[in-house]
Amino acid sequence: MDLLIKNVTLVPMDGKNEVVENTNIYIEKDKIKHIGELKQDIEVDRIIDGKNKVAMPGLINAHTHIGMSLLRNYADDLPLHEWLTQKIWPVEANLTAEDIYWGSLLSMVEMIQFGTTTFCDMYFFMDEVGKGLKESGMRGVLTRGLIEEAGKEREKLNDTRNLYINWHNKGDGRIKVMVAPHAPYTCSPTYLAQIMDLAKELNTGIHIHLSETKKEVEDSFEIYGKSPIRHVYDLGLFKIPTVAAHCVHVDDEDIEILKDNNVNPVNNPGSNLKLASGFAPIDKMLKKGVNVALGTDGSSSNNNLNMFEEINLAAIVNKAVNMDAISVPAIDALKMATINGAKALLWDNEIGSIEVDKKADIILIDMDKPHFYPLHNVVSSLAYSVQGSDVDTVIVDGNILMENREIKTLDVERIMFNAERSAKDLINR
Amino acid sequence: MDLLIKNVTLVPMDGKNEVVENTNIYIEKDKIKHIGELKQDIEVDRIIDGKNKVAMPGLINAHTHIGMSLLRNYADDLPLHEWLTQKIWPVEANLTAEDIYWGSLLSMVEMIQFGTTTFCDMYFFMDEVGKGLKESGMRGVLTRGLIEEAGKEREKLNDTRNLYINWHNKGDGRIKVMVAPHAPYTCSPTYLAQIMDLAKELNTGIHIHLSETKKEVEDSFEIYGKSPIRHVYDLGLFKIPTVAAHCVHVDDEDIEILKDNNVNPVNNPGSNLKLASGFAPIDKMLKKGVNVALGTDGSSSNNNLNMFEEINLAAIVNKAVNMDAISVPAIDALKMATINGAKALLWDNEIGSIEVDKKADIILIDMDKPHFYPLHNVVSSLAYSVQGSDVDTVIVDGNILMENREIKTLDVERIMFNAERSAKDLINR
Repeated sequence: MDLLIKNVTLVPMDGKNEVVENTNIYIEKDKIKHIGELKQDIEVDRIIDGKNKVAMPGLINAHTHIGMSLLRNYADDLPLHEWLTQKIWPVEANLTAEDIYWGSLLSMVEMIQFGTTTFCDMYFFMDEVGKGLKESGMRGVLTRGLIEEAGKEREKLNDTRNLYINWHNKGDGRIKVMVAPHAPYTCSPTYLAQIMDLAKELNTGIHIHLSETKKEVEDSFEIYGKSPIRHVYDLGLFKIPTVAAHCVHVDDEDIEILKDNNVNPVNNPGSNLKLASGFAPIDKMLKKGVNVALGTDGSSSNNNLNMFEEINLAAIVNKAVNMDAISVPAIDALKMATINGAKALLWDNEIGSIEVDKKADIILIDMDKPHFYPLHNVVSSLAYSVQGSDVDTVIVDGNILMENREIKTLDVERIMFNAERSAKDLINR
Repeated sequence: MDLLIKNVTLVPMDGKNEVVENTNIYIEKDKIKHIGELKQDIEVDRIIDGKNKVAMPGLINAHTHIGMSLLRNYADDLPLHEWLTQKIWPVEANLTAEDIYWGSLLSMVEMIQFGTTTFCDMYFFMDEVGKGLKESGMRGVLTRGLIEEAGKEREKLNDTRNLYINWHNKGDGRIKVMVAPHAPYTCSPTYLAQIMDLAKELNTGIHIHLSETKKEVEDSFEIYGKSPIRHVYDLGLFKIPTVAAHCVHVDDEDIEILKDNNVNPVNNPGSNLKLASGFAPIDKMLKKGVNVALGTDGSSSNNNLNMFEEINLAAIVNKAVNMDAISVPAIDALKMATINGAKALLWDNEIGSIEVDKKADIILIDMDKPHFYPLHNVVSSLAYSVQGSDVDTVIVDGNILMENREIKTLDVERIMFNAERSAKDLINR
């Protein structure tokens, strides 16, 4: 299908223009073919009126566990250790493939409604997430979280190999697979070496949790005499392109390592605040030239998948942390959620900005709402005033997934019903 | 008009029940007459179906400057001093009564859409805000901000006296007037004494900014040898019931003074983060028994008036500050935005909770959204998952101000148009 978005305000995130007023975006099949004045009449299947709307790249949620939406608000206001060991892990042990299917589709509906077009997921039963990506039309990176477990090391590695064979580049190229050691505290150096070998064999990237909590860093110094980041660097992990979730408790040496090795930290401010993990030094990392992406983490520690809330948090929290009102300005927070995320997921040749020849992953924001008036500054309004519910239209790969807030690709009622049923069954299993 | 809300999930904020499933709320004219089972058929003018909805008290925004919505996103990502002196103050000097009228109505539309029923405003041309309160049907406290200005001291005090005479208890009792010295750094002890006399003469409360920034506190120690809170306490200010906006940089002695004198601090987390003011020690204040309320501050430092964002921030930011995942649990953040706000505004005999004989200030949240599924915990979901746009129905004083997200009392299009026009004129004046 060919599409024309007419008379729209464009926030392209192309590193050149912040805002282009009153322009047109011509989409041929899955790609952006032309931006700007229309020199001739173009025949298209659909024209979308961009009046009072902003077009921007679809948001990229670079670290999440979408199946965990089944545990949304299940265990809040608890200390981290009790939350994990007494609440989350016992329930997770009972999860079935069907649960993950419905939980993942529930999350995809929510992500589309809040303007996310691409996500990087770490969980298990990842075939179900692959099925969901095909059905929803979203774009995503599947990673099977690898926690070392005696006797199951090889089986879990094979899961990832099969996941890669079955899903990498599938769904018209909307699906990628990476290799995901859960964390250096759940994978020994020996297991990490095997995982790295697999990533090299498959020629794909790594998705890992690093330095999320103070305790994790202290334990690493006790066991290895160095930080988690220095530890995996010394093991050679960063020779593989790496998406490093959290990176909250990092020192200057850690930041140097991240920068020198083109590691991509993913900031998850909502989760880091809610779980009392701490404040990642985002301003410092950005100033050093580190490519920081943005994510929601799972819905059990957030408790939603609204990337606009994360953009807002990234833009405002770092100001107070640094006692500096110009830390992480609006445009930088928007970059984290778009082009930086695309770079982290090795996808910036196709997504992350609205440019000719890139894939048409575009969201339209309805600016005709009281909380956007008066419209003094579009970029500011997208970081400080916007609501997830202002997303009107979502396009991925040139296909309309949502229009006028109506999801086109999924049966929302059926998904909500089955996710609720799965979750209630699960708790009582 | 008599109303019946049937089969609703109730979060009453009455200090007794957290959640009451499947109940009914019977409203006779402006008051809640009955909650619970209906023993007989009641004849009412309107029945509202509460299925899949949560009823909770309307939110109370205890500190804001609603006219400043005209400057929303006008000057972001600037240092505080430059923001105030080069951007905000020069424009504010040109504001007219008509600007404030449209800016205030714009804010009321936004507040109703996001579930706020009562606000405490500090600005000028406050008659315009009074008119807006009459038209919108909202409830509010009008306070004319008093900044000492040579030769105009008496005139400004008279503004407040006239405001009180013209508006206190007007709008069917939905309007109150308090006295508002802007801050101890903009009012000398002499002027503060005159202001306190006026508050006593009118037998009303005080609304003031206290200890918002580190610099303000340092300056106070330099000039008076004590903190702003100790300074105004020594002047006798706290003998009058006081709403104290911000209270970010407070020490243990300050907290003792606030507690012992029943002062009501208003936490404005969004503004405090965005302006890099810092982190107020909310957890500590709550644990000492201080009645902490919640506010948005003005839209030029937030940049919206969505109290659910402030509830979320209050609940998550303090966890990271204290490295304690059980700091400020969901229910406490909801209290700050409801019953604590009512206490601060000397209105808890009528609003702040859903109880028989209180005024019917009630909002209904539409829970039938993907980001609320599965519904494991209603209270958690209202602090961690909710969106401002989930507010479906808003009732104040028994009158429906919004239903199915449609505003009943105001002409939204006309207000957005005129606010935009006022703002653009203003910048070019």
